[in-house]
Amino acid sequence: MEEVDAAARKVRVRDLITGRSVWETYDQLLFGTGALPLCPELPGSDAVEICGINTLESGLEIRRRLDQGGIKKVVVVGGGYIGLEMAEALIKNNLEVSLVNRPSQVMETLDEDMGALVSQALRDVGVALYLEETLTAFETSLGKVTGIVTDKRTLPADLVILGLGVRPNTELAAAAGVPLGEKGSIRVNARMETEIAGIWAAGDCAESFNLVSRKPFYVALGTVANRHGRVAGINLGGGYATFPGVVGTAVTKICHLEVARSGLQEKELRNLGLQWDSAVIKSRTKAGYYPGAGEITVKLLAERGSGRLLGGQIVGAEGSAKRIDVVATALHAGFTVEEMINLDLGYAPPFSPVWDPVVTAARELAKKL
Amino acid sequence: MEEVDAAARKVRVRDLITGRSVWETYDQLLFGTGALPLCPELPGSDAVEICGINTLESGLEIRRRLDQGGIKKVVVVGGGYIGLEMAEALIKNNLEVSLVNRPSQVMETLDEDMGALVSQALRDVGVALYLEETLTAFETSLGKVTGIVTDKRTLPADLVILGLGVRPNTELAAAAGVPLGEKGSIRVNARMETEIAGIWAAGDCAESFNLVSRKPFYVALGTVANRHGRVAGINLGGGYATFPGVVGTAVTKICHLEVARSGLQEKELRNLGLQWDSAVIKSRTKAGYYPGAGEITVKLLAERGSGRLLGGQIVGAEGSAKRIDVVATALHAGFTVEEMINLDLGYAPPFSPVWDPVVTAARELAKKL
Repeated sequence: MEEVDAAARKVRVRDLITGRSVWETYDQLLFGTGALPLCPELPGSDAVEICGINTLESGLEIRRRLDQGGIKKVVVVGGGYIGLEMAEALIKNNLEVSLVNRPSQVMETLDEDMGALVSQALRDVGVALYLEETLTAFETSLGKVTGIVTDKRTLPADLVILGLGVRPNTELAAAAGVPLGEKGSIRVNARMETEIAGIWAAGDCAESFNLVSRKPFYVALGTVANRHGRVAGINLGGGYATFPGVVGTAVTKICHLEVARSGLQEKELRNLGLQWDSAVIKSRTKAGYYPGAGEITVKLLAERGSGRLLGGQIVGAEGSAKRIDVVATALHAGFTVEEMINLDLGYAPPFSPVWDPVVTAARELAKKL
Repeated sequence: MEEVDAAARKVRVRDLITGRSVWETYDQLLFGTGALPLCPELPGSDAVEICGINTLESGLEIRRRLDQGGIKKVVVVGGGYIGLEMAEALIKNNLEVSLVNRPSQVMETLDEDMGALVSQALRDVGVALYLEETLTAFETSLGKVTGIVTDKRTLPADLVILGLGVRPNTELAAAAGVPLGEKGSIRVNARMETEIAGIWAAGDCAESFNLVSRKPFYVALGTVANRHGRVAGINLGGGYATFPGVVGTAVTKICHLEVARSGLQEKELRNLGLQWDSAVIKSRTKAGYYPGAGEITVKLLAERGSGRLLGGQIVGAEGSAKRIDVVATALHAGFTVEEMINLDLGYAPPFSPVWDPVVTAARELAKKL
């Protein structure tokens, strides 16, 4: 699709085989144009071994390069979900991995204290971590990358992977006059319809609503995109469905360490002008005496005064990450931490201590409020 | 403690070393007398190898008997949590295990269709299952058990383990005139105080409130007992705390199969005169393509008309059981299944399919309502 004439309800479509463009009419139009990886315009960035990861094909391309051999040193730029997952995959392939990150800890969607646990885990599995460093250039030789340059050093590299985040792919929508919202994503109502009748949007190109901050929110995640698609599909098909919004849940892992977050983090609370208290507790993933019990750290944040849960972050051993679902569900419900103390969560020694770690964190936080 | 004089605020306490009894006064009295295992009065039940499991000591006693050697065949009577956990432990110790159960499936706190999955798992790990059979007698020789007799057959046994459930240990409270409630447990208010001023109760001897049925409820579980104790302790110490109630969550496992339930099951809904619909879905514990993804079956029940979630049951591979916490939290929140469809739960391939199995079940159930 090359162009949209919203007034005439027509789109110009190019046939990829013949190369010919034709105008087609539509009754309803859905933008599902997704997101594009952020690529810095820096010296040397046209060297071929520099890969962003946003499609199956880009993953296969990295696989092919590794299989060709000759690659020993890899630099990953960016300490978010993609950067961490790539670092894990590369370390497991016995490569020498460096990770360069502009913020002072990896996982910027966590607070710094929780992010520090993830940074340490990366070091523990052998990743050389360069925090608070900014990528300034790529070093190349004969069109191939040989290293990267930061504001502090030069790192040799046979392959560079960029995980610098994404932006919504909305040029076409913008050109058609469709109003954009958060971070340039397509503004939609709860039915996933844009401000132009008959034009809809869903997935990584579309805006969401944050049920905790009560504000428009942009998040590019598969779960959210799927739910967008379901709601848009029902409505396009003549039904009625709404997507109330998200609470900002995300999970990942780096080797044996699981990482999860939901709701708002301190940075966001500060920007919203909210007053909050937080508690961080350490517990075990199973009963302490049960074989395989691992450490889990849970942080909860709640509004000072009301005690309303505002967010949670979890870092820990196997069995930690999905415990964030209790935090997410409690955020949907608008629970206070006091209400969370009495949640009737599942307990048996192979699954949890008697007091679930999330509830233990709620107990500690309730004491401060 | 042998006797309570509530009017005089006195208790008669026996010194276990000297054997002497003395009357002591109290300001506040807490019953934490727990529960006692149900023991049938049947021919041969005084034979020594017949063990109920309710204390650490009774567990150690079974361990000692096994370590002495000579035990090959064990019969477990009762297909609840204790029966299943003992069957698992015994099978792992390479013993020949039979399990006798009066209902038509094990795990009576699940609906029959979900219980059947657990019965099959028991057979798969090598347990000989005798369903719809009632224990009628023990066979003994020289004061030692040699087998059990049901209404259908005789089974030889070197050791018999009884897991027939528990009853609240409330004789002392009843004798003191403290009113009892559900299944003979001590009736308490939300502060865990009995109907007699200055007398409190907590743990397996005390009644709870079921937040889904909105009725008094008796459940003997460690999590509930712990939360009872916290609330009673705060109140006894001069503070103010309440225990709103439980939603009936429980989890267990039999070898690799995890089992979980929360809320009300069909039998309870029928007794309450409620109209409901249910959906059962099969999904995977991780993204289908991810190594180690296992099968998970989720059943959800909701009120016909309103769509209010009434209960959930989960049976599946590793990573299944604690997903019940989302169901439990949603029950606390009073969510409809429609509201559950848009829960922002954690997704990454190592942890879940894009649509979490609990949400998939909610989607299927919403179609029926």
